Amino acid sequence: MSNALNTLLHNSRPQHLQQLKDLLTIASISAKAEHNADTAHCADFVADALRSAGLHTEVIPTPGHPVVYAEWLGAPDAPTVLIYGHYDVQPVEPLEEWRNPPFSPTIEGDNIVARGATDDKGQMFAHVLAAHALMSVDGKLPCNVKFIIEGEEEIGSPNLDPFLRDHRDRLAADVVLISDTSMWSPGRPGVTVGLRGLTYVEIHVQGATHDLHSGLYGGGVANPINALSRIIAGLHNPDGSVAVPGFYDNVQPLTAEERAEFAALGHDEAQFRAEIGVAESPGEAGYTVLERITARPTLDCNGIWGGYTGEGAKTVLPASAHAKVSCRLVANQTSEEIEAKLRNHVLANLPAGVTARVELHHGAPAFLADRAVPTMIAATNALKTVWGVDPVFMRSGGSIPVVASFKSELGLDSILMGFGLADDRAHSPNEKFSITSFYQGIEASAQFMLELSKLPKK
Amino acid sequence: MSNALNTLLHNSRPQHLQQLKDLLTIASISAKAEHNADTAHCADFVADALRSAGLHTEVIPTPGHPVVYAEWLGAPDAPTVLIYGHYDVQPVEPLEEWRNPPFSPTIEGDNIVARGATDDKGQMFAHVLAAHALMSVDGKLPCNVKFIIEGEEEIGSPNLDPFLRDHRDRLAADVVLISDTSMWSPGRPGVTVGLRGLTYVEIHVQGATHDLHSGLYGGGVANPINALSRIIAGLHNPDGSVAVPGFYDNVQPLTAEERAEFAALGHDEAQFRAEIGVAESPGEAGYTVLERITARPTLDCNGIWGGYTGEGAKTVLPASAHAKVSCRLVANQTSEEIEAKLRNHVLANLPAGVTARVELHHGAPAFLADRAVPTMIAATNALKTVWGVDPVFMRSGGSIPVVASFKSELGLDSILMGFGLADDRAHSPNEKFSITSFYQGIEASAQFMLELSKLPKK
Repeated sequence: MSNALNTLLHNSRPQHLQQLKDLLTIASISAKAEHNADTAHCADFVADALRSAGLHTEVIPTPGHPVVYAEWLGAPDAPTVLIYGHYDVQPVEPLEEWRNPPFSPTIEGDNIVARGATDDKGQMFAHVLAAHALMSVDGKLPCNVKFIIEGEEEIGSPNLDPFLRDHRDRLAADVVLISDTSMWSPGRPGVTVGLRGLTYVEIHVQGATHDLHSGLYGGGVANPINALSRIIAGLHNPDGSVAVPGFYDNVQPLTAEERAEFAALGHDEAQFRAEIGVAESPGEAGYTVLERITARPTLDCNGIWGGYTGEGAKTVLPASAHAKVSCRLVANQTSEEIEAKLRNHVLANLPAGVTARVELHHGAPAFLADRAVPTMIAATNALKTVWGVDPVFMRSGGSIPVVASFKSELGLDSILMGFGLADDRAHSPNEKFSITSFYQGIEASAQFMLELSKLPKK
Repeated sequence: MSNALNTLLHNSRPQHLQQLKDLLTIASISAKAEHNADTAHCADFVADALRSAGLHTEVIPTPGHPVVYAEWLGAPDAPTVLIYGHYDVQPVEPLEEWRNPPFSPTIEGDNIVARGATDDKGQMFAHVLAAHALMSVDGKLPCNVKFIIEGEEEIGSPNLDPFLRDHRDRLAADVVLISDTSMWSPGRPGVTVGLRGLTYVEIHVQGATHDLHSGLYGGGVANPINALSRIIAGLHNPDGSVAVPGFYDNVQPLTAEERAEFAALGHDEAQFRAEIGVAESPGEAGYTVLERITARPTLDCNGIWGGYTGEGAKTVLPASAHAKVSCRLVANQTSEEIEAKLRNHVLANLPAGVTARVELHHGAPAFLADRAVPTMIAATNALKTVWGVDPVFMRSGGSIPVVASFKSELGLDSILMGFGLADDRAHSPNEKFSITSFYQGIEASAQFMLELSKLPKK
């Protein structure tokens, strides 16, 4: 990074913070129609910032909220990065738990507190400001840069996949850069290299055609709740592993090196338990908690219901019972494979006297980044340059659907360079973002573009 | 039965039917405050009928709907029967399913269709008319008779136990006679000699202190729904018997004679399955369906809930899960005993990583009548006289709380002489009562009083 850039970034900090504050005053709650004008205003705000940075910028309508697209393609011999982010935010309820109004950004120590601070306005805007700074100093960017900032991430990105398909040629790039995750810890950057996939199904168990009186029929007919409980109990082995035959067949085993890396992270299981208020943290035998929650496949019930669930006692023997069951997948399991195995297992082990249906809600593939590719090395170099320490290769147990979309629709791998922290309270009251991380994120973004410019165009 | 009585009963049929129709026009829905005037009016209607029969009659207020009490005590050397019934009815919704308005009694073939026809106005009023007929013919009753007709049975009789306690001396009797059950079949009378008791609990399973993201925590923490499913699955053995240790310790086994009686009833299991739309009717090994639903103890889940139960998919790993579980008991199990055994079993077999509470909702004792006592023989003789065939000794799998109340509060056994039919649609639209059964019920009631008069006063 040039001294000129370094100086500009340092001197611009008060202005950058003010711009972020302005962005955070916009109540761009994509889930709420009464905020549609705010959401549209937010798209324009981001577009204006990109335009003033010197990028060709468009606000492109979709059937929902618009996509802000911007590009600077003046480096024909350099690679192209497609930077993804989102300008919409989660709803703010429960409002009474906020110390200050959610769209009145407040500085508390090193943090800026507001809805969207970390998810994703603060992280996304770091890239916009980096582009602006580079253009200010050099009149150009070191590599080609495309921005795609959507306004529907918090409602499941219903229009993103069609958008990617419709603009496939225009969105061509060497790599996708996303900052919508966390660092390893304060002062220690991280790249999320693993995400778990998902198979989410609903199991419907049917007994009699109608609810029965448990006194008059109890003992003479299968009870769907008891049957469903047996089905669910049969999904795990006594050692905590998943009992669905073939469930682990395609799992890419953790290498000794990966396990050593996990061990070196010093994950504190006692603290993990204390934070969620449990005395034990059982799971698949033979793996640490950190391995189990990030790098091993799992099966969990997400919901169950049947019969009488109101106050007091009702002696009903219900006609049906239902459960939502999801599996977190790791490379190289596929959602289709696991769905089929799960369904077969449930139907093959059905208790007498009931029928069952297993319905797919949705699936998502697992993600495991290749750490050896040049773009990933560029990212880790950038982070090391800014923070002075090697970034941690992190795995998250959750899914980030857009990562799968970029792969399936555009054939692009994503680099998940997080500037947030695990305790940023995304989706919760008093969401925050570290101001230091914000400034360092801007530097890291600029540094990444500089690193990328050293690589040959694909 | 004297010729005079026989003739009177026969000639009075049109008038008796008209009186029942009048009674059935009164919308005495105890659950609905907007019908309080109707309910009060119904109490007065029944009281007037008893008064005009020549009984000393009072409408006694309670904190809820009043009790109609009547007595005729002019037979100092004869036993006393306490006849229980209720004048209140269930709500009528869904109204659109009624072929005629629920309080516009309609004759359809041999049936009178109206809310309360079988439950319990038609059955209860048969006894009132029997007393009236006996008094008309003889100027006296053959035995001492007390009526207690309450107006809160359909809302759980909240004021009955205190009423029984407050009027214990006045309610002294040799036996309680209740007609609020069914005959075995059209033309075949029955006495219900067995009722199952109940232990109804709620199981609460707690994992983490708050809901977690199933992606970020799945695999690292016990899932309360999965744990609850294991708990519930562990409540039964593979042979369908209840796995709670000691559950069967106090069960009075079915005798060979009782089992032969059950077999002789010709219960059609294929028809049972067809009526409720199931292909199999699994349950405790070694017993027929009829034995299992009436004479064997059972355990059923009545409700279960936890996590996300709305539409679509939510990847929550919930903090808690809950189930309502009830056991139907038979003589000589006690609710207290089974509650304790169930709780101990659940807590002793708790999956790792969760805690649990087992809360009692309520219990009710089982009822098994002694068929050899003179009052029971009087009842069966009366039924045989009217219908010309031996009554069936029936068992019902459900509970009738007032039977337990009469035993606990007054020390009295009940005779359950049902005039209804299993398909009378009590609590449902188009409730009906057989007009033939109504007339025969009047005869049976009169005949029972005559039979009772032959017995020595206790």
